Amino acid sequence: VRSILVECVHRRNTMKPKIKDELLRPHERIDDLQLNGLYIIQDPSGFCFGMDAVLLSDFARPAPGAYVADLGTGTGILPLLMSAKTKNTRFEAVEINSHVADMAQRSVALNGLQARIRVHAMDLKDAPAKLGKSVFDYVVCNPPYRKLGSGKTSTDALQATARYETNCTLQDVIIAASSLLQNKGRMAMICPCDRVVELFASLCAHKLQPKRVRMIHSFVDRAPKLMMIESIKSGKPFVQWMPPLVIYDQDGSCSRELNRIYGREEA
Amino acid sequence: VRSILVECVHRRNTMKPKIKDELLRPHERIDDLQLNGLYIIQDPSGFCFGMDAVLLSDFARPAPGAYVADLGTGTGILPLLMSAKTKNTRFEAVEINSHVADMAQRSVALNGLQARIRVHAMDLKDAPAKLGKSVFDYVVCNPPYRKLGSGKTSTDALQATARYETNCTLQDVIIAASSLLQNKGRMAMICPCDRVVELFASLCAHKLQPKRVRMIHSFVDRAPKLMMIESIKSGKPFVQWMPPLVIYDQDGSCSRELNRIYGREEA
Repeated sequence: VRSILVECVHRRNTMKPKIKDELLRPHERIDDLQLNGLYIIQDPSGFCFGMDAVLLSDFARPAPGAYVADLGTGTGILPLLMSAKTKNTRFEAVEINSHVADMAQRSVALNGLQARIRVHAMDLKDAPAKLGKSVFDYVVCNPPYRKLGSGKTSTDALQATARYETNCTLQDVIIAASSLLQNKGRMAMICPCDRVVELFASLCAHKLQPKRVRMIHSFVDRAPKLMMIESIKSGKPFVQWMPPLVIYDQDGSCSRELNRIYGREEA
Repeated sequence: VRSILVECVHRRNTMKPKIKDELLRPHERIDDLQLNGLYIIQDPSGFCFGMDAVLLSDFARPAPGAYVADLGTGTGILPLLMSAKTKNTRFEAVEINSHVADMAQRSVALNGLQARIRVHAMDLKDAPAKLGKSVFDYVVCNPPYRKLGSGKTSTDALQATARYETNCTLQDVIIAASSLLQNKGRMAMICPCDRVVELFASLCAHKLQPKRVRMIHSFVDRAPKLMMIESIKSGKPFVQWMPPLVIYDQDGSCSRELNRIYGREEA
């Protein structure tokens, strides 16, 4: 089956109906990630990955051969993208919703990445007990970072789980990450800027020292809304700030940096 | 004497030699602040104010009538600039070096601002005991923010005091500010970005909640080096990020925002 799938992948969108039927459930579709011939299964009526995950997959830089955990993987977008951007990395992808974890698992199979990415339908709070403490080199997390009751609450339960702290808080994520990581292991996450003070405090309280920060601005003259933070377990103080990541040029077109991250050729 | 001084100020650089002799000591000079006819006495062989102070005087926004403390005022640049930018504010300006405090005092007299700005030659650590606890609406501070031993150490003792934590640490400044401020009072400071984690932790440990942040970038595509932070005593979490402050346009000329802050007309 794997070779057929790989062949499908390389022929792009020419997947045989039979294979497609085996892998897809009602309402689902296969989306081309336009990176190394990767595809992902998503349910457009549920939660689809957004730009956050793509930006984080660029910011997170595990070393070649790193053992990586993704906390709250959703449909598996982060390990799928990161597997293409890093060498010999292996991923344990944790997702609390078993329906979504199943989609992620099928996406991994679709891309023939079973040897590098394992999907676990589990609460990330149980991850250290089940996957091992102090064994990971790197943790990534695109967490549900909106406090309950803030912003407009999604009426869809699945979207709510992905965006709001219904099943876990930022602190739960940080506690799990700290426990999973070995000393000097690193964690990369994305978070709304307005929560930076509590986030830094929580990271430090769990031995994760923020070491690298990149702010995300929609336009260069606008306030940032999101930030990406890489922390080192038992690291020393001092933060390295990166140049701002600006999404759009003043004329509304995608910035050069965004095109680079999406792997698009420049005109 | 005051009316003569005010007259001198309004005639700009046409100060009578006699008055100049009264106010200036050897090596000192009078610089035009190019804002509301303000002047400042500085010693070019010592420490002169830099762009930091001008940027902070724009970022700090005490309400009309606010009672403001400046911790480490140097030659008095912050209260001088802020007196012109705010209405009916009154300032207690604290400076540990009595020689520099004397220069600040003479600049206050030169500008006829004795009714609004008082200069105190004292250690800022003694400010709460001497000026009063929980009585200020606003504190500003352009602190000596380099850790001892970091960067190139200035050979000049005065410059070292202004730039390095020789006489006080960031924590000393924060403790003094928290003590001086009444509840809901605010503090604005400027700090190197790389110390943000310890700075936030120290502010929070002393009841100062960071509420407004502005990053300072030399160029729009460079990492920020300095940041300005306004905290509220006993404030609630959540930080408001401002658009980045970019100093230079890509061609190396001063940005529009910098010209606005310096009160320069645009071409």
